[in-house]
Amino acid sequence: MLAYQLIERKRDGGSLTPAEWRELIAAYLADEVSDAQMAAMMMAAFIRGLEPEETAALTEAMWRSGSSLDWSHLDVPRLDKHSTGGVGDKVSLVLAPLLASLGAAVPMMSGRGLGHTGGTLDKLESIAGFRTRLTLAEARDQVERLGCALIGQSDEIAPADRRLYALRDITATVASVPLIAASIMSKKLAEGLTGLVLDVKRGSGAFLPEVERGLDLAHLMVGLGQRHRLPVVALVTAMDRPLGRACGNAIEVEEAIHALRGEGPPDLMSVTYALGAELMVLGGLAPGRDAARRAMEVAISSGRAAEKFAAIVEAQGGDPAVADDPGRLPQAAACELFHAPRDGVVASVDPRAIGFGIIELGGGRRLVTDTIDHSVGFVMAVRPGDVVRQGEPLATILAKDTDGVEIGRRALRQAITIGEEAEYPLPLISHRVSAEGAALYDRADTPEEVAAQP
Amino acid sequence: MLAYQLIERKRDGGSLTPAEWRELIAAYLADEVSDAQMAAMMMAAFIRGLEPEETAALTEAMWRSGSSLDWSHLDVPRLDKHSTGGVGDKVSLVLAPLLASLGAAVPMMSGRGLGHTGGTLDKLESIAGFRTRLTLAEARDQVERLGCALIGQSDEIAPADRRLYALRDITATVASVPLIAASIMSKKLAEGLTGLVLDVKRGSGAFLPEVERGLDLAHLMVGLGQRHRLPVVALVTAMDRPLGRACGNAIEVEEAIHALRGEGPPDLMSVTYALGAELMVLGGLAPGRDAARRAMEVAISSGRAAEKFAAIVEAQGGDPAVADDPGRLPQAAACELFHAPRDGVVASVDPRAIGFGIIELGGGRRLVTDTIDHSVGFVMAVRPGDVVRQGEPLATILAKDTDGVEIGRRALRQAITIGEEAEYPLPLISHRVSAEGAALYDRADTPEEVAAQP
Repeated sequence: MLAYQLIERKRDGGSLTPAEWRELIAAYLADEVSDAQMAAMMMAAFIRGLEPEETAALTEAMWRSGSSLDWSHLDVPRLDKHSTGGVGDKVSLVLAPLLASLGAAVPMMSGRGLGHTGGTLDKLESIAGFRTRLTLAEARDQVERLGCALIGQSDEIAPADRRLYALRDITATVASVPLIAASIMSKKLAEGLTGLVLDVKRGSGAFLPEVERGLDLAHLMVGLGQRHRLPVVALVTAMDRPLGRACGNAIEVEEAIHALRGEGPPDLMSVTYALGAELMVLGGLAPGRDAARRAMEVAISSGRAAEKFAAIVEAQGGDPAVADDPGRLPQAAACELFHAPRDGVVASVDPRAIGFGIIELGGGRRLVTDTIDHSVGFVMAVRPGDVVRQGEPLATILAKDTDGVEIGRRALRQAITIGEEAEYPLPLISHRVSAEGAALYDRADTPEEVAAQP
Repeated sequence: MLAYQLIERKRDGGSLTPAEWRELIAAYLADEVSDAQMAAMMMAAFIRGLEPEETAALTEAMWRSGSSLDWSHLDVPRLDKHSTGGVGDKVSLVLAPLLASLGAAVPMMSGRGLGHTGGTLDKLESIAGFRTRLTLAEARDQVERLGCALIGQSDEIAPADRRLYALRDITATVASVPLIAASIMSKKLAEGLTGLVLDVKRGSGAFLPEVERGLDLAHLMVGLGQRHRLPVVALVTAMDRPLGRACGNAIEVEEAIHALRGEGPPDLMSVTYALGAELMVLGGLAPGRDAARRAMEVAISSGRAAEKFAAIVEAQGGDPAVADDPGRLPQAAACELFHAPRDGVVASVDPRAIGFGIIELGGGRRLVTDTIDHSVGFVMAVRPGDVVRQGEPLATILAKDTDGVEIGRRALRQAITIGEEAEYPLPLISHRVSAEGAALYDRADTPEEVAAQP
């Protein structure tokens, strides 16, 4: 009866009180509200929207449905980064050990591939033996010892969000700004952080392609952080093309290892440094973003960041030798170049076509029960704006056999458009949103940024 | 995957093709689409609406999910009436035997009480022994023998509608014009009728109070009938006050028996004759509405209509003696008059307050598993517009004990408003909708109508 009236009210465009959201979530977890009722509510919320007070109440109800990490005995900044999802985005693999090597505690909770996007956990499991399922207690111990743990969402964290997310996933109610914000923040608040940076993707390969919706999401999450004294900064970054060159699982780990050694592609380094600088300032590890950037460069050039990565891999049961020898990662049986069909300019590289191509190659899941072939993927040799000649290699296809190579070729034909001139790619980092408001991101002081821009 | 994309499209205001509605309903019945997915779809359909083509496809998919009655060997008109639900509405109990006594076949499929409204099946079960659960074969045999069977929705008829209705009932997605139209018509098309009349209620006690929405529903159902060569006429009638005097279960059966003997209250007779006249003309049993009305009056004054009622009751296992002696129906233990608290004019009698009062007395269900006390209810002595003096009886309360009387008194205090002058009650029958279009109902030729108007 309670649930019925709340659904009816949201259906007609009304609002629920914070107490009503709390009761609804509690009743759902107690199986007093059915999946069908919650699905109807989520669809009504998707179409009618949520007031900021409602989003805050839903976030808190999901957060409080589980445990939170307690760091009260620890005197270091606890920092994490969250991305709304993209293709070729291996920033977490670089940033987490990098910040840990600089004195931060990074209890990083990541996800699996979703839709056309890759997932940090899937990438990490390219490393033989790597365990992403730690208990909260194990993760906390490891963070205290090493400064970082790279784990999946534990059953102990925000169980209401887990259940609601699974429901939204099959009922076409995922792509709602307030529901996304509540889902992300319910988990991040449970991590007991002192600073959080969000990488909000925009462009054709993002779940919310329009920059306005990305900015709405950023504002909403910054506001949710403020309510609970968690400083949040969001950067809006481009996902109208893949980030970096490698797109897949093992090859993204390989690219991340190169990046930790100072040999990453400029766009990947630029986004990594920009997000890392925000976190270091939030955590009091650097007086400003320029100083933070210099410290990160030193951590990489000195080898400390790469050493930290090896230590984390070893602590979580993985083969630490991959950090020195990425050739130990799974290698694709078939490897072939994809050539330009004509002279011209690379007009666009569609991340969705690349992402779905990886899934078709076996490197992602169609069903949650599918197993992943970590070895497959693409390495992009070009990016939008590059002038190419017929027959010049545009990408490398990594597949399990010749059929896979053909699948990869088809995906690349769809993904890469050669035209007479470049379309207008999005600026790599376009906006910065913080508690002080939103501003265009100032790229003048970031030399990698200039190099990274197509 | 299929379901996901269809939900997504409806969510964003798009339409499904007829084939997609067919596949969706088939997949739902095969448990390949979950209740949660269907609930999300129903909420999206509720908010975004359905195109007429979609409503037609959904109707047909639900109809075809079960059996249909086959009357091809029978050469009499098959007629039925459906009401969108009200308080005090016992028209079916009068009209079904009346039309059967005039040569029609009336395979009447009725429902239970819903919300604040009563249900024909619940009323019939006031009669000791009466069985409303016949198989389709039993019902058909009885209709062939007696011209009428009064039954519930069989498992064989439109099972997809049963399941979908139960889902909509808990997810606040019932009160949608296209979903209501599809639900009603999927069952009526399965009855193999040659004529159908709809009593679309308007006013505060109706599920769709606004006349515009009632007219939309009428047009939609007339159109659905046309697609399948089923002539449908809809009359829009008043539900801003109860219909007739008796409101409850046994007492409504008693009032229906009086009506079958020519002693019904004028508003009940007026609506019954108006609906019956439409059906007789549709079925070719009378050349026009005036002739139909005269034939019905004769069937009643001759006693044939009441005899038919007794025969139906007996055939379905009930006590046929109630037709002669309604005192054999369950009698309430406590019976008390409710008096006017002041001089004035009856401004309004709220059907919802009366309907919920009956439920509180035990005469309706809060949960589907509740059992009903058939003896309780109200008999209204006044109607809107009546001048009353303080202390004059306004109604009789029928309850199981003195606590019940107090509950009844509270309900009547809420339901009956005494003011300085009458509010403007709705015309008893305001509109007529047929394949030729909608028109104001012409009341000049209906003397009972004039007498019945408050």
